[in-house]
Amino acid sequence: MKRIAIYPGSFDPITLGHVDIISRALPLFDELYICISNSSKKTYLFSLEERKQLLIDNFSDTKKVKTMVNAGLTVDAARSVDAKFIVRGIRTNMDAEYEKSMDVMNKALNNDIETIFLFANPTLSSISSSLVKEVALLKGDVSSFVPKNVAQALKTKMG
Amino acid sequence: MKRIAIYPGSFDPITLGHVDIISRALPLFDELYICISNSSKKTYLFSLEERKQLLIDNFSDTKKVKTMVNAGLTVDAARSVDAKFIVRGIRTNMDAEYEKSMDVMNKALNNDIETIFLFANPTLSSISSSLVKEVALLKGDVSSFVPKNVAQALKTKMG
Amino acid sequence: MKRIAIYPGSFDPITLGHVDIISRALPLFDELYICISNSSKKTYLFSLEERKQLLIDNFSDTKKVKTMVNAGLTVDAARSVDAKFIVRGIRTNMDAEYEKSMDVMNKALNNDIETIFLFANPTLSSISSSLVKEVALLKGDVSSFVPKNVAQALKTKMG
Amino acid sequence: MKRIAIYPGSFDPITLGHVDIISRALPLFDELYICISNSSKKTYLFSLEERKQLLIDNFSDTKKVKTMVNAGLTVDAARSVDAKFIVRGIRTNMDAEYEKSMDVMNKALNNDIETIFLFANPTLSSISSSLVKEVALLKGDVSSFVPKNVAQALKTKMG
Amino acid sequence: MKRIAIYPGSFDPITLGHVDIISRALPLFDELYICISNSSKKTYLFSLEERKQLLIDNFSDTKKVKTMVNAGLTVDAARSVDAKFIVRGIRTNMDAEYEKSMDVMNKALNNDIETIFLFANPTLSSISSSLVKEVALLKGDVSSFVPKNVAQALKTKMG
Amino acid sequence: MKRIAIYPGSFDPITLGHVDIISRALPLFDELYICISNSSKKTYLFSLEERKQLLIDNFSDTKKVKTMVNAGLTVDAARSVDAKFIVRGIRTNMDAEYEKSMDVMNKALNNDIETIFLFANPTLSSISSSLVKEVALLKGDVSSFVPKNVAQALKTKMG
Repeated sequence: MKRIAIYPGSFDPITLGHVDIISRALPLFDELYICISNSSKKTYLFSLEERKQLLIDNFSDTKKVKTMVNAGLTVDAARSVDAKFIVRGIRTNMDAEYEKSMDVMNKALNNDIETIFLFANPTLSSISSSLVKEVALLKGDVSSFVPKNVAQALKTKMG
Repeated sequence: MKRIAIYPGSFDPITLGHVDIISRALPLFDELYICISNSSKKTYLFSLEERKQLLIDNFSDTKKVKTMVNAGLTVDAARSVDAKFIVRGIRTNMDAEYEKSMDVMNKALNNDIETIFLFANPTLSSISSSLVKEVALLKGDVSSFVPKNVAQALKTKMG
Repeated sequence: MKRIAIYPGSFDPITLGHVDIISRALPLFDELYICISNSSKKTYLFSLEERKQLLIDNFSDTKKVKTMVNAGLTVDAARSVDAKFIVRGIRTNMDAEYEKSMDVMNKALNNDIETIFLFANPTLSSISSSLVKEVALLKGDVSSFVPKNVAQALKTKMG
Repeated sequence: MKRIAIYPGSFDPITLGHVDIISRALPLFDELYICISNSSKKTYLFSLEERKQLLIDNFSDTKKVKTMVNAGLTVDAARSVDAKFIVRGIRTNMDAEYEKSMDVMNKALNNDIETIFLFANPTLSSISSSLVKEVALLKGDVSSFVPKNVAQALKTKMG
Repeated sequence: MKRIAIYPGSFDPITLGHVDIISRALPLFDELYICISNSSKKTYLFSLEERKQLLIDNFSDTKKVKTMVNAGLTVDAARSVDAKFIVRGIRTNMDAEYEKSMDVMNKALNNDIETIFLFANPTLSSISSSLVKEVALLKGDVSSFVPKNVAQALKTKMG
Repeated sequence: MKRIAIYPGSFDPITLGHVDIISRALPLFDELYICISNSSKKTYLFSLEERKQLLIDNFSDTKKVKTMVNAGLTVDAARSVDAKFIVRGIRTNMDAEYEKSMDVMNKALNNDIETIFLFANPTLSSISSSLVKEVALLKGDVSSFVPKNVAQALKTKMG
């Protein structure tokens, strides 16, 4: 039986932290869906289509990585692709607390799905999409925080 | 002399976590006021009247439990009902840090009032009003997180 | 019905942090037992008799405060004096985590007994019995961390 | 290619927390080695043979679960059974910090091996082997914290 | 060579916590720039000019303290005044996590600039500008949290 | 007036984490004393003379770095060399809590001395002297955690 997982997030935009977690989680699974959250209540810097494209460009040579879009519960997204696993990275202790709460909540909503955690590489644990956007907005160099295509896209976006 | 406490919160809506803290705190006091915060600066899903009714329905057989509304400082609300104690639940470490700061602040504002803490039951510590609303909005089943009347009200509200 | 609590600890020796928690918890209860842990597996600087005497001297004018000795489970000590409550102070986040675990454990052992927490006064939250002993051993002045009788006893002890 | 993992620990003795992590991690792997740490520098309540037997009894019907003994580095133990993964449970924030440090250390020692984390079930997150032994020593009832065979063994051990 | 530092913040308004950090950091440096963040994306209670004046009034007799305004990256602000150091206070553990991330990010942006941390005085560690504003809005007495000129300004502002 | 600091620790043995903190703190001071704690109550792997030599070898070309030995209070050691500052590195949140307590304690013992904190470089924040010794004992390669001379000394020591 195939082991399938989803890796949920906003990916607005994808960072080297995300890339690292995906690469390290891949050997555990036969298929890994990058599950792009898209909520009508949130404002994104990059459109859904842009976020998806920036993602795909970084995993074009890995057939096991796929993408999907989710506007509902994470556990429902997992079920929709027969995934029994959710993958999450933990960057800080505050992250850990939040993730623990979501884990319990998700278990209550669907006990058949297990969330698997990886700690962020320490050199990448300070990077978040929102911090990257803030730095880019202030004309800081984000090239050590995001993949090349994202650095380029941020430059274009911020003008 | 009567021991009187207030249990402040937004209760938008009340969860099983709140119900648990209230039930466990009750034996300590002769009167316990559930003190509903109502700020003109905040947006609530449920109106003040709805929040109050959803609360009362769960404590109708406990005469020691009363309700009150507060739009000012918590310590002033306590003083207004002769309460010498504030009750708060702690769900996570982040909660603990925030509560510790509020405790010090409240002591500075009124040194006669003591805040008493209970740790959330571990099965309920992942439940917050905001998480419950988010799940309900995404059509998730919240019946294990909130009292029956709230689950019903959320269903009506979310349509 | 009387509200009775125990405040368990080693009190080797009692610090101003302990005194503060006891004083602030007192209005909640009709009787408060300072419950001195005495384990044959631990080494104490002060004997049980000394620890008890150093405690009593600080609460001689408060009839509600009593002392007891415990070599068993905390919940059994509580039950032995008809106490329905355990009082604990929280100094740091690490404290909070440990206390949360003990709270859950104690609830599993005896669900009738509730543990009530107070945050340490911030000016006292760095004081622990072990740190006080370490400072006293290195000839530091501990008079701002412990009651006068303890400061004197430490001086005698450390020579 | 088989996915093989080790789950390292002292298991002195195995608790329901361990059992839960093993059960939840199993679907991820084709083989899971419970890797019993045995250091000549540590004192154990149960002998290596006892710890192993208490473990095995709980997984006798699961062929994927195996046991091994380790007195060296965890990454070397993993390599010795061709495991590319280490499984660890996280109970508290303090746990999380320690595990993060060990994760980084293990990556530095062998970058081919990935550590996968699961959060403890909240009802079990207060249970540790050492706490269980302490409660058993004080004649507390540990039957809700450990498997039946361990509860029996503790009773025998503690007399 | 002169040792120059910046102390960045919004200072909306300056609190006794800020004053304490500045006073304690001063002996380390020959010049200390209070660096007022001013972002077009944020809403402030006090205008830039008001925030600056409220600051200056408290350090009029200390020639080493200067003020500057920053709408860009903190490391760029530091470089603009030849500062090799950034000073930051840490109030809580959550603060510490955030500051650690910013530290790593700033090092990635400019490795020549070092951030120096001081822990907040425990009696002041619960005070933040936002909490002070909230209390003032609810007509609470903030005189023990902020300098006199700020207390007066808040009273005028809140009416 | 000279700015003098001490950097206290056991340095049993010095790690790359210590070396990093010392290098980054140096520009702040005119003299920096590495203050080697030596307590008759502790057991060290390396003798005081060995620890000192392993330290010195790494700072032989930096005249600002000096060494001293301390068996008493840290604030007394600082005063003995006219140091107004103590330097400490913070590796984890647990570190931060401990350091905050020691900071408050030291301020109570001598209010004229200020403790300055640097966060550990994230690639080094998992390294502690005790973890290094544990890995070396189990024949792991510690060359990426300690200076060359220490790696050699550990190899000799562990046999």
